[in-house]
Amino acid sequence: MFYFCHRVILPCDPTVDDKLFNICMLSVSLVVMLILAVLSRRNKLCQGFTRGSPANFLDQTQQKGMAMAVFGLVFSKLSMLVIAPDPLPFSKDTSADSKEYMKIMAIFYYPLLYYPLLVCGTLQHKVGYVLGALLSFSHFGVLGWQKFDCPKTPEIYKFYALLASLPQMGCLLYLCVQFVILFVKGPKTDEDLDSSYYTAYVKLTLKKKSSSPLTSLFICLSVFRFPLKLAVSAFVSFVAIYHTALLLVVLVVPVLHIVRAGIDENIAFLLLGFGIILSDDRMEVVEIVTFYTWLLEVCYLCAVTLSLLVNLVMLMKSMIMHRTNLRGLYKGEIYSIYNSKKTIRPSRPGIVCWMGLTGYQTAIVCVGMAIQTVVFFICFLFLVFMMIVPVFYGRNLFVFDILGRAWPAWVTLLLVSALQHVATKFAFIKRDAGTRDLNNRESLFLLTYLLFLINVVMGLIVAIWRVVITSLYNIIHLGRVDLSLLHRTSEAYDPAYSYYTNALRVEISQSHPVMKAFCGLLLDMMVEGGRVGQKIKDAEEGIQENGPSKATHTRRIRSRWQLMYTLVHNPSLLGFRKHFQTTQTAESILNGTPNHTAKTNSKGTT
Amino acid sequence: MFYFCHRVILPCDPTVDDKLFNICMLSVSLVVMLILAVLSRRNKLCQGFTRGSPANFLDQTQQKGMAMAVFGLVFSKLSMLVIAPDPLPFSKDTSADSKEYMKIMAIFYYPLLYYPLLVCGTLQHKVGYVLGALLSFSHFGVLGWQKFDCPKTPEIYKFYALLASLPQMGCLLYLCVQFVILFVKGPKTDEDLDSSYYTAYVKLTLKKKSSSPLTSLFICLSVFRFPLKLAVSAFVSFVAIYHTALLLVVLVVPVLHIVRAGIDENIAFLLLGFGIILSDDRMEVVEIVTFYTWLLEVCYLCAVTLSLLVNLVMLMKSMIMHRTNLRGLYKGEIYSIYNSKKTIRPSRPGIVCWMGLTGYQTAIVCVGMAIQTVVFFICFLFLVFMMIVPVFYGRNLFVFDILGRAWPAWVTLLLVSALQHVATKFAFIKRDAGTRDLNNRESLFLLTYLLFLINVVMGLIVAIWRVVITSLYNIIHLGRVDLSLLHRTSEAYDPAYSYYTNALRVEISQSHPVMKAFCGLLLDMMVEGGRVGQKIKDAEEGIQENGPSKATHTRRIRSRWQLMYTLVHNPSLLGFRKHFQTTQTAESILNGTPNHTAKTNSKGTT
Repeated sequence: MFYFCHRVILPCDPTVDDKLFNICMLSVSLVVMLILAVLSRRNKLCQGFTRGSPANFLDQTQQKGMAMAVFGLVFSKLSMLVIAPDPLPFSKDTSADSKEYMKIMAIFYYPLLYYPLLVCGTLQHKVGYVLGALLSFSHFGVLGWQKFDCPKTPEIYKFYALLASLPQMGCLLYLCVQFVILFVKGPKTDEDLDSSYYTAYVKLTLKKKSSSPLTSLFICLSVFRFPLKLAVSAFVSFVAIYHTALLLVVLVVPVLHIVRAGIDENIAFLLLGFGIILSDDRMEVVEIVTFYTWLLEVCYLCAVTLSLLVNLVMLMKSMIMHRTNLRGLYKGEIYSIYNSKKTIRPSRPGIVCWMGLTGYQTAIVCVGMAIQTVVFFICFLFLVFMMIVPVFYGRNLFVFDILGRAWPAWVTLLLVSALQHVATKFAFIKRDAGTRDLNNRESLFLLTYLLFLINVVMGLIVAIWRVVITSLYNIIHLGRVDLSLLHRTSEAYDPAYSYYTNALRVEISQSHPVMKAFCGLLLDMMVEGGRVGQKIKDAEEGIQENGPSKATHTRRIRSRWQLMYTLVHNPSLLGFRKHFQTTQTAESILNGTPNHTAKTNSKGTT
Repeated sequence: MFYFCHRVILPCDPTVDDKLFNICMLSVSLVVMLILAVLSRRNKLCQGFTRGSPANFLDQTQQKGMAMAVFGLVFSKLSMLVIAPDPLPFSKDTSADSKEYMKIMAIFYYPLLYYPLLVCGTLQHKVGYVLGALLSFSHFGVLGWQKFDCPKTPEIYKFYALLASLPQMGCLLYLCVQFVILFVKGPKTDEDLDSSYYTAYVKLTLKKKSSSPLTSLFICLSVFRFPLKLAVSAFVSFVAIYHTALLLVVLVVPVLHIVRAGIDENIAFLLLGFGIILSDDRMEVVEIVTFYTWLLEVCYLCAVTLSLLVNLVMLMKSMIMHRTNLRGLYKGEIYSIYNSKKTIRPSRPGIVCWMGLTGYQTAIVCVGMAIQTVVFFICFLFLVFMMIVPVFYGRNLFVFDILGRAWPAWVTLLLVSALQHVATKFAFIKRDAGTRDLNNRESLFLLTYLLFLINVVMGLIVAIWRVVITSLYNIIHLGRVDLSLLHRTSEAYDPAYSYYTNALRVEISQSHPVMKAFCGLLLDMMVEGGRVGQKIKDAEEGIQENGPSKATHTRRIRSRWQLMYTLVHNPSLLGFRKHFQTTQTAESILNGTPNHTAKTNSKGTT
């Protein structure tokens, strides 16, 4: 898989110095930010031009890809910090004392460095796209050039720096392509609130009960929209899985290679010191030990691969679970997720959890992978050194010896177990007129008493099986924040799960399709101008003509019922109703969702 | 707590030889069984005399104490087998080869030895009580005499045999007293089915909705009747906790004492060989090592005590959970226990699980205690040797050094965490007209992005905390079968929990209060004789007079509704309704529940 070379690799200084490049990029970024600030202020002054706000990058209305790429980029930088000799590019040959401080500073520096990329994508303006393309091209170009200059580094494993920078290069390349495409196509006009997804959801929800299966079918078939924050979390977790696997391999395998290369005839004496005699021939001892270290390496790589696969599968299952949870919460099924009645409303812990969720999930995936690797490694070691190797070489068959010597116990347990099942089937169950009932109760009691002690012994196997299955299940699911590892009555004590549920509550309160549909309707009204307050009120009550005809009256009554129905099924919308009186407050709800101007509007006009 | 003496204890042969005693007891038991069989057959022939059946000892109608004591006795014997030199009393100085077989035979022998005690209590007859008292007195007397003769044995710890036989003596003493009391008072006439518990339950269930809180109050206040099987399981678990704690102490502490007694000046050289220099003075090294082994012992005893207390608390919580589950299942709340719709009916796996449950639970408690002790021991060791001793002696402060050196990281994390909470409280939540909403979304997004990396670092702490809390929770709850240790969607994979739920289903189907009340009513009818089939039908439909008055008609309609109500809320009763046509089948339902003859009956007569 990997070929490690034991020659000393000299430190390599790339043509493009990292320090110089970072200073240049910081200055360029500063200029870019200033330009974008001016543009953004002009946007705010002339409302008609408004398209986006520079810091609105985590809103549902934004392109998911950009935010995902930037977060992935930043996380890649963090994971390279773990064993980097110089955490910050501004100082070379950092001393061990100041490394700690450097790392803390780096944690704050890198998000700042890549921030302009996010802003360029968020401010929906051609100038922004040009600047974004410029920035991402220079980042990508320099990184590529450096890696081409110095593919090998004197760090633990010569290709580690190259392999670790692959996700960064991928993210930067995606950003380049995306900025160019956006520049060519221009800012997209199909806004989040205009899309038919929300209105279709509301229309189907408001329909009569008879169409309920159709509703669910629609919601199932329509492409489900993940909240941006969850999509970012999933992508960063994916990047984290790559980096953790890479680190796990790179930190251990080269050491094993060095150990294997250093095995010589002295090993026989060393083992003799511990009373282990593998063979009388010293060369054979060397061969055996070399073979064992090779097996060790194979076991380790298998464990890392297994843990990698387990985490990828768990990530996919998490996504499915997120979708189920979101859909359930949209429908008001709060109990199934929280196991208690809680309101869906932004709360203080909720927002703190929402801010941290991506970070927490990533860290939990990393820790989970490390623990999984260790556990799987131990399991593989046991399997190989206690089962497979002894069977192949026919010696050290401890496990089989122990199992074999206990055969009377196994046979007894098997026989008793079979006896219980057979007796139950033929003697203790009576089928009569389609029902089942107990039969021969006295014999059942007698057998229960006589087999009580053997059932205690059988219980030991059940207990060991319980310990094994519980540990494995919990270790495998350690990386998932959407599952509690505790019993359902104590779910809230699992910190990861409680963060997840809190964050989800904030997410739901901000991206509920019914609310979004209503916001879209409200914006349509506002764009029309004039009599806005009245119009909104009318829209809410379903009145679009003021004619006093009977049809209007019927429609108004029906609309009011529909409004009540909506509010009853979506109580989180209730809080917003008081704002509908004036345009001013109506605007404040939409704080952060972009305004729409230049578009045709067919629903608002009569 | 314990004082161990290192003098050699000579093997002690009690005056009453175990082999001779067992042979005598077996013969006496055989005679007793024959007498009881004759008595039981006579009972069956003259139905009017019937009081009990010899093997009906696990029925709800039986005294709980007897069965609990005998099961406890049998289990005590098993737990003494674990380190006994002679598993069976018939052979002395068993060779290691045949010990395995002897143990398996002993597992079948001891339940047989104590079986007559159970039968004497179950067959509700004065002769049975006399024989039972005789048997239990001779068991108790001989055991007491043996222990008085030889309080010390050459086994691992001199008083182990004495301490381990305490639960046996307790159980036997209880049986003696109980048999004497029963003989004096005579067989109790207040049968299970006559008690007002069941009829009161049904009457309250059938009342109108308005009295619902009263119903629940009644069910809460009335002494809850545990099924006999669960009571036996709980008692045996209690005995198991005692035996496991005793074994855990006895297997380790004497070894530590021997090690401590053997510490001399050579230990300094031995430690030097490993490169450990505790002190330059050899005597001081001896003192330090002695002190450390003493600390080790203290840690171990603390761990055992803690695990003992944890298991006692868990046993009590289990009992509360059993009661909640049973009450819920009586009311038909199947979903909350099984997480899926399942019928409450005896099934093949259900009966097998019901037979094994006591044994499985006991074994799981034992394994749980052992694992808990090991884990708590490691925790205490870490606490004492890494925290307390270094603080007292001011050296080897590894843990504090590591924590202290990382102070910039701690301070940063604390500050960032505080920043997030403060910002959320004062900037990101807007309270308006009683609702809470997000405010300053752009700043929230900016902060989320900038603090992303530090949140990853914070996530590492969350992940470690999650691992710790999950492991501790699951290890503490390992001994409980009424809790699944897996996530609620995978509960069925936990073997212990799935056995418990299966067994509970069988238990419920046999001890449902509504069914019991109906069986009581049915027996009352049968005792009256004549027109039984018609009477039962009448009773079911609430008709007691055949007068065609309007009042009867109304009552009949109301009774039918009540019947329907009962059946709808207790669907498990539905299966029994087809049997109500003939006396023959009605009797077959009651197979095993004792018949009632000589008693006044006020309800059945008009």
